[in-house]
Amino acid sequence: MDKILRIDMGAEGGPKATEEPLGDYAGLGGRALTSAIVSKEVPPLCHPLGADNKLVIAPGLLSGTTAAMSGRLSVGCKSPLTGTIKEANAGGQASQVLARLGYAAIVLEGKPKDDTPYKVMINKDGVQITPNNGLRMLGNYDLVEKMKGEHGDKIACISIGPAGEMKMSAASVACTDMELRPTRHAGRGGVGAVMGAKGVKVIVLDDTGMKMRSPKDPEKFRKANETWIEGLRKHPITSQGLPAYGTNILANIINEAGAYPTKNFMWGRFEGCSNISGETQAETETARGGVATHGCHRGCIIKCSGIYMDKDGHYLTKQVEYETVWAHGANCGIDDLDSIAMLDRLDDDYGLDTIEMGATIAVAMEAGVAKFGDGAAAINLVKEVGKGTPLGRILGNGAALTGKAFGVERVPVVKGQAMPAYDPRGIQGIGVTYATSTMGADHTSGYAVATNILNVGGSLDPLKPEGQVELSRNLQIATAAVDSTGMCIFIAFAALDQPETFQALIDMINAFYGLNMTADDVTDLGKSVLKNERDFNTRAGFTAMHDRLPEFFKKDLLPPHNITFHVKDEDLDTLFNW
Amino acid sequence: MDKILRIDMGAEGGPKATEEPLGDYAGLGGRALTSAIVSKEVPPLCHPLGADNKLVIAPGLLSGTTAAMSGRLSVGCKSPLTGTIKEANAGGQASQVLARLGYAAIVLEGKPKDDTPYKVMINKDGVQITPNNGLRMLGNYDLVEKMKGEHGDKIACISIGPAGEMKMSAASVACTDMELRPTRHAGRGGVGAVMGAKGVKVIVLDDTGMKMRSPKDPEKFRKANETWIEGLRKHPITSQGLPAYGTNILANIINEAGAYPTKNFMWGRFEGCSNISGETQAETETARGGVATHGCHRGCIIKCSGIYMDKDGHYLTKQVEYETVWAHGANCGIDDLDSIAMLDRLDDDYGLDTIEMGATIAVAMEAGVAKFGDGAAAINLVKEVGKGTPLGRILGNGAALTGKAFGVERVPVVKGQAMPAYDPRGIQGIGVTYATSTMGADHTSGYAVATNILNVGGSLDPLKPEGQVELSRNLQIATAAVDSTGMCIFIAFAALDQPETFQALIDMINAFYGLNMTADDVTDLGKSVLKNERDFNTRAGFTAMHDRLPEFFKKDLLPPHNITFHVKDEDLDTLFNW
Repeated sequence: MDKILRIDMGAEGGPKATEEPLGDYAGLGGRALTSAIVSKEVPPLCHPLGADNKLVIAPGLLSGTTAAMSGRLSVGCKSPLTGTIKEANAGGQASQVLARLGYAAIVLEGKPKDDTPYKVMINKDGVQITPNNGLRMLGNYDLVEKMKGEHGDKIACISIGPAGEMKMSAASVACTDMELRPTRHAGRGGVGAVMGAKGVKVIVLDDTGMKMRSPKDPEKFRKANETWIEGLRKHPITSQGLPAYGTNILANIINEAGAYPTKNFMWGRFEGCSNISGETQAETETARGGVATHGCHRGCIIKCSGIYMDKDGHYLTKQVEYETVWAHGANCGIDDLDSIAMLDRLDDDYGLDTIEMGATIAVAMEAGVAKFGDGAAAINLVKEVGKGTPLGRILGNGAALTGKAFGVERVPVVKGQAMPAYDPRGIQGIGVTYATSTMGADHTSGYAVATNILNVGGSLDPLKPEGQVELSRNLQIATAAVDSTGMCIFIAFAALDQPETFQALIDMINAFYGLNMTADDVTDLGKSVLKNERDFNTRAGFTAMHDRLPEFFKKDLLPPHNITFHVKDEDLDTLFNW
Repeated sequence: MDKILRIDMGAEGGPKATEEPLGDYAGLGGRALTSAIVSKEVPPLCHPLGADNKLVIAPGLLSGTTAAMSGRLSVGCKSPLTGTIKEANAGGQASQVLARLGYAAIVLEGKPKDDTPYKVMINKDGVQITPNNGLRMLGNYDLVEKMKGEHGDKIACISIGPAGEMKMSAASVACTDMELRPTRHAGRGGVGAVMGAKGVKVIVLDDTGMKMRSPKDPEKFRKANETWIEGLRKHPITSQGLPAYGTNILANIINEAGAYPTKNFMWGRFEGCSNISGETQAETETARGGVATHGCHRGCIIKCSGIYMDKDGHYLTKQVEYETVWAHGANCGIDDLDSIAMLDRLDDDYGLDTIEMGATIAVAMEAGVAKFGDGAAAINLVKEVGKGTPLGRILGNGAALTGKAFGVERVPVVKGQAMPAYDPRGIQGIGVTYATSTMGADHTSGYAVATNILNVGGSLDPLKPEGQVELSRNLQIATAAVDSTGMCIFIAFAALDQPETFQALIDMINAFYGLNMTADDVTDLGKSVLKNERDFNTRAGFTAMHDRLPEFFKKDLLPPHNITFHVKDEDLDTLFNW
C-alpha cells in the first residue's frame, strides 16, 4: 500500500493509468489521504463535475491487515452537493482488497471525451480500463451480477448506479459486502456524481494471489489486535446493542429523547416509532429467515448489520440502518418497515444516499408532492429518480435543490447537505457538528449523540448549550483521525470509554508501520486533516456564515421539549480554535 | 413622497398597513432606499421566502415629477436566486404614480398565514388589502384586464404571474406600461418569488386626485429639465439609435464585435443574427402595423420601445429588448423573431425574467432537453414553467438550478444569476462587472459595454484587461447613484459623454429638494449604496471567492477572437477599493 494509482480519464487516446509512489502523501491513509490530495490538487473553485475535480478512493492505514474492523474505504473529492471538500466512507470488502492490491489510493482525474461508461479491473496483473456501453444505466445489483459473471465471485466492486451516471448530487459510490451485494455506500455529498462525471461505472478488484499486509512488528501487532478485540467485545454497545439490534437500536432511544425528527423536522417524536424500531426490525428479520446479526466485511466483530427478507422470505436488502429507517420512515411519517426496506433497496440499486433521499422526500411531501405517511408514494418518487424524469432530476439532487424547486422554506440542510436522524434542537451537541463540520450536516464527523444521549465519553445535557462546542471539537478531531485508519466509526464507543482500547489502536498502527505515535500525535493527525479541509473550504468561499443551521431551527420550537437550537453563533465560531 | 407604507402580511387578524415617516431613510430613493432598508432590516442569513425577508418597492428621487426619464421603480429584497441583496428595477407607469401618491416606499413584510392571494389597492383615500382567490394563478395579462374591469383604466399595476405565486427564483415583478399592459419587469433575482411569498398578487395604484410632485425651486428645476432634455435629444444613441431600432440595435454591433453569446456561450457570433437584429425587428414591426418607436412611461423622450404584432397584425408583445432577443434567440440558436416574441409574451405573462429564462433554456438545450434552434420546443419549455410541472419547476428556478438538475458543467452564472447578452471574453469590462457586482451577473450595474464597444465615456480595448477594473468601478458607483434617482439607465449615454447633461441631472435633484449636491456628492451616494450592499452580502457569507466567473470562461477559448476572460483575480479584488 505504498503507491497511488492515477487514472486520467481524459488522456489523449483514451483513459490512461499510471502508478506513482506516495511521495509527499507518505504516512497518510483514508480520509487523511483523500483530503490531502483534494486540498492540494483540486482547484477549490472548479466545477465539481469538471476536468479539474478528482475522485480519490483510499483504504485506511490498517485496511488489508488482520486488524479487526479495519474495512472502511474513504472516497474524497470536491462535492457537487455542498461545494465543500468531501470525504464519504463505506464498509464492505473493497477497502481490504484494494489495500492488499498495494494501492494507498486510486485517483480518477480529467474529463472523458464522451459519456461511455468504463470498467476498471484491478488485479495482481495490473490495471485494465475498458469501455463498455452494455453497463449503461445498470442498477448496482445487476451491475455486480454482471461483474460476477465476468470475473467470478472472488471480487469486490466499487460502482455507481444510474444516479451517478446522471451526475445527481445525491449519488453514492457503492461497495460490495461479503455476499457480493452492493449494500455499502459512501453515501454523502454526491461522490457518485463525480465518479459518473469521470465516466467510471465500476472498479472491479480481485486480490487473488495477493497476501495479507504484514506488520513491521508482527508480534506486537498481534497482541495489540487481541487487546483491541477484547475491548470491543467488552463494551456494551459494541458487544450487545449493535450486534443484537443493529444501529436501529437508536430509534426508540432517540425517539424517547424527543430528538427523532418527524415529518420534515416538525416534531421530535414519531407516533409510529415502535413499528420501525431496531427491536421490531430484528424480530421481523429473524421471523422471515433473514439474519439479525451480520458483518459488512471480513474482520468485523461488531456485526451491526443483518439481512432483511421480504414477506415471502426472499432477500430484499441488508438490514436497514438507523439513519435510513429514520430518513425514509419517521421523517416521511412512514411506519412500515417493508416500505422502508424497499426504499433502501432502491437507493442502493440506483446508487443514492439514503439520508439525502429521505430528507428530500420529506421536503417534497411538505411541498405537497406526496402525502406524509404514504409509503407507496415515496417508493414511486424514488423510482422517478432512477428513471431520471424531471421530477427525479429534482429529487435526485437532494433536499436543498428540491426545496428551492418547490419554494419550500423548511429545508433541513447545512452547506446544502441534509441533516441526518437527530434533531439539533433535541441534541444540541450534534447541531454544533452539523453547523461546523467541513462536510455539511454530517453526524459521523463528530457524533456528539454519544455523550449527549448514550453517556459514552462522559455525559452532557443534550438540551443545554454548555460544553457542546468543546465536545464537538474533540469528537471532530478524533473522528478525522479514526477516518484515516480504515476503522469503522463504531469502534469509538469502546475507544472513548476504555483508555486501553484506544491505546490498542495506536499500538496497532505503531506496530504495523514501525512508529512511535502517542495519543497526542493522533490528535495532531486529526487536526491536520481538519486543517486541510477547512483550508480548502475557505478557498472555495466558505465563511463562518456558512457554519450555521437554517433559521427555522433557531425560531421554531421542537415538541415535546419545545426548544430551539440555542448554541450561540460566536461560540460556534470558536470550534476550530485549538 | 415623504412616507413609507409598511404592510405586515403576517399580522394577527390579517394583513395590516401602517404609514411612517422616512426617518433615518430621509433623502434616499430608488435603489439607495431599497438597499438601505434591506441592509438594515433584513437578517442576511434569513430564508428569502420566509417571514424575515422584506420586499421594498421604491420610486426614484425624481419619480412623480416632470423630469424626463424618471419612471424607474426599484424593487429590493434578499434574492432567492442569488442569496445576495437585490435591487431590480423596471420602467412603466408605476413609479410615477406611486411617487405621486406620496410613498417613498412600500415595504411588504412578514409571512402570510396561508397562500391566499391578496390585492393591495392604493389611491388618494388610502390603502385597501383584500384577499381574492379569484386571482390565483392568473397570468399578468388577464390579471391586469381584471383590475381594469374593477378599477378603470387610470390605474397602474405592480403584479406577479404564476411564477411568482409558485415562488420560482426566476420570477419577476411586472409593471404596467402606458397602454396598461404588464410589459415592464423588475426581472432579475427572483423578486417576484418574494412578492409571492408575501402573498401579494397585485398592487393597484390610482393617483387620481393627486398632483404632480412640486420642486422646492420650480424655476431652477424647469431650466435644468430643459437642459437635460436637450442633452438627451443631442446624443446620437439616445436621439437616433435607441428610438429608431430600440435596444436591439446592439445585436449587429455585439455580434460584429464577436461577443454575442451563441448557443449557451459556445461562440461569439451567431449566424442567424441578421434575422433577429434591431433593424429587422423595426422593419417587421412597421410592416405589420405595430410601432417601432414608443416609450414605456409618460415622460420618456428616448422611446427605445415599440409594439410587436403577430403575423396577423394583432398585438403580441412590446418591442422585445436586446437582452431578451439574445437570450431566447442567439443563446438558444433561434433566429425566428416570432418565436422570440412569443417567448417574451409568455415570460411577461407568467412573470419571468427573460434573461434568466433564455439562459436557462440554453442550459437545458445543452443537457439535451431540447435542440438548439428549436423555437417551438423553447415555447413549450416556457409553457411547462407556467404550468408548474416538475420540468417547469426546474426551469423556472433559473440556469444554476437547471444546470445542477441536469448535471451540466457549462452554466453561465455568477452568484447563481445568469449572465446577460455580452460574453465576458469578448468584452472583458462587462466580465469585471458580472464578477464583482453585488447583484450577481448583471450588465446594468456597471455597463462597461459602453466604453468597451460603443466608445461612450471614452474607449477601451474590449479584449484587453487593462483599465477594465477601474472602468467597472466608476460605472458601478455612477449606476448605483443613477438607480436611486428613478432615471432610466439609458440617460447614462448622454450623461457620460456630455458634462452639461450630467450637471443638469444634479441640478434637477438640487432644485427639487433644495440641496447643493456636487458631482462628488453623487459619487459618494453611489459608494454608500454599494457599501450597504456589500456589507449585506458579507454578512450573508459572500467573499472574494464569489466574485469570480465560472471556470470555463477562464479555460475555454471564445471564437472568433479565441480568447478567454483574463482579468486577474487579484485585480478583481481591488474593485471596491476606493
